[in-house]
Amino acid sequence: MQITDFKKIQKNIIGTSVPKPLSGTLSGHAAGELFDKHVYTEIKKQYPKQTFRQYEYLNDLYSKNPETIGHEARFALFNSPTVMFLLSRGKNATNKWNIESPFEEKQNDTADILVVKDDFYEIIDIKTRNISKSAQPPNIISAYKLAQVCAKMIDNDEFDKFSINYFEIDWLLKGEKLICENAHYVSLFQSNPETLYINWAAAMQLQFHVCDLDQEFKGNKKSWAKAYLKHFVEQAKKRADYMITKFVKPFEKYID
Amino acid sequence: MQITDFKKIQKNIIGTSVPKPLSGTLSGHAAGELFDKHVYTEIKKQYPKQTFRQYEYLNDLYSKNPETIGHEARFALFNSPTVMFLLSRGKNATNKWNIESPFEEKQNDTADILVVKDDFYEIIDIKTRNISKSAQPPNIISAYKLAQVCAKMIDNDEFDKFSINYFEIDWLLKGEKLICENAHYVSLFQSNPETLYINWAAAMQLQFHVCDLDQEFKGNKKSWAKAYLKHFVEQAKKRADYMITKFVKPFEKYID
Repeated sequence: MQITDFKKIQKNIIGTSVPKPLSGTLSGHAAGELFDKHVYTEIKKQYPKQTFRQYEYLNDLYSKNPETIGHEARFALFNSPTVMFLLSRGKNATNKWNIESPFEEKQNDTADILVVKDDFYEIIDIKTRNISKSAQPPNIISAYKLAQVCAKMIDNDEFDKFSINYFEIDWLLKGEKLICENAHYVSLFQSNPETLYINWAAAMQLQFHVCDLDQEFKGNKKSWAKAYLKHFVEQAKKRADYMITKFVKPFEKYID
Repeated sequence: MQITDFKKIQKNIIGTSVPKPLSGTLSGHAAGELFDKHVYTEIKKQYPKQTFRQYEYLNDLYSKNPETIGHEARFALFNSPTVMFLLSRGKNATNKWNIESPFEEKQNDTADILVVKDDFYEIIDIKTRNISKSAQPPNIISAYKLAQVCAKMIDNDEFDKFSINYFEIDWLLKGEKLICENAHYVSLFQSNPETLYINWAAAMQLQFHVCDLDQEFKGNKKSWAKAYLKHFVEQAKKRADYMITKFVKPFEKYID
C-alpha cells in the first residue's frame, strides 16, 4: 500500500529553492530543515487532512479523545502495538499530556512526516544532502529499534499497518539560495535487508544514502521482518566477535 | 610533572564573562568556544612561548624543521612514538604539509591546548557546561585510542613525556553575557581507571563531568596504563557479552 504520490512530490520539488539559512554551517541540519518543511507542504497539498508532523498527529489523536486519560489508554488508541511503539512518546510524557501543554517537535522522533489514511500509517523521513560535498551516509534509524519493530510485527501478526519511507533532497548552493537538483525516494521494506549497514559505534544506526538503497526485495512484509532479524542477529554476533578481536586480544598481553 | 598553574587559571577565570553568542543554541559548542579561547589566553599569559593550539604546535614544529620532509621524518621530530600518536595528523596530510598551506584547527584534534616545555607535553582539553541545565557527561576521548596510547607507553617505556588534563568551565547566562560561575581541573592519570565509563555506542567515548572525576589514583603512570588496559579489556568483554544478551538472544526465536 502507498498513499503519497512520491513521484509527483519528486517532480514538484526538483528545481525549487529555499533561501540560504542566515546562520550555521551549510553542511548540516539547519540547511535541511527548510527543504523538510517544503516537502511537508507538498504532501499536505495532496492530503490536507491526513498529513501530520509526528507530534501534530499525537496532539490530534489525544485531543480527539479527551476522555482517554493515562498512558495505557492513550497507547491503545493506536489500535496497533507496532505503530504505537514507533510513534508514541514515553509513558511519563503520555500521562502528562493535556490540551494546554501539547507535545512539541522532538529531534529523535521516528517520522518527519506522517500520512494517515484508512488506519494505515505512512512514515516519511526526509534526508537532505549538499551534493557539492561528499559526506558519510546519514543516520537512518536505530537498527535495534527496527529489530524490535520487526519482532512486534511478527508477535502481533501486523504486516499491513504502516510503511517506512525515505525521501532524499539533493541540493546545491547557488547565490543566496539552495536549489533542489534532484530527489529520491525509497521504501525500507522494499530494500534487501541483508545489504543494510549497521554502524554499531554510532548509536547502532542504519546508515545509507537514500539514492543508493536497493529496492529489490520481492517478498512480503513478514519475510522482510524475518530476513531483517536474521541479518541483525548475524551482524550483532559479528560485532561481538570483532570487539574481542580488536579490543580484547591485542591488549591482553599487557595485563598481569 | 605539571607545567600550567591550573589553580591560578581557575582563580583568574571564575567570575569572568564572555558575550552571548549571536546565533546557535546555548547548549552546545558555540557557547563553549569563547570560554575555550579565554582559558587559552590565560595559559598563554603564564607560558607565552610554550602554549599552542594543537594545529599551531604542528605548524610551528614543521616550520622550524623545513629540511624535514615526508611523514616518517616529520613524525620522528616528536622524539616520542606515544606523543606522536596523540598529536600528529595522518600520513597523507603530514606528507602534504608545507608552510604555504599549514594545518587548520580540526574538531577531533586530541588537545584544545598544548603546553610544551623541556620536552614534556601537557595536553589540555576544555569542557564547558551550562549549569542551568542538567546534561549527559560529555565525550572525553576514545577509550580505544586511550588503550592504544597506554600500550605505546608500555611498549616504548615512555611514562614521563606527557599528561592529559581536563578543565571544566561552569557557566550561566546572565543578561547578554555568559558568566563563569565555577571551574574544575583534573589529571586523567590521577583518576582511578576502574571508574571510567565507556559509552560503546557513542563512538567508544569515555564520558564524565570533569568535576565528578576522582583524583585518587596513587600509583605511577606505568601502573595507570596497566590498570586502564585491564579495565578496557574487561569492559570490552562485558560489552561483547551484553550484545549477545540484548541483541542476539531475544531475536533468535524469530529466525527459521
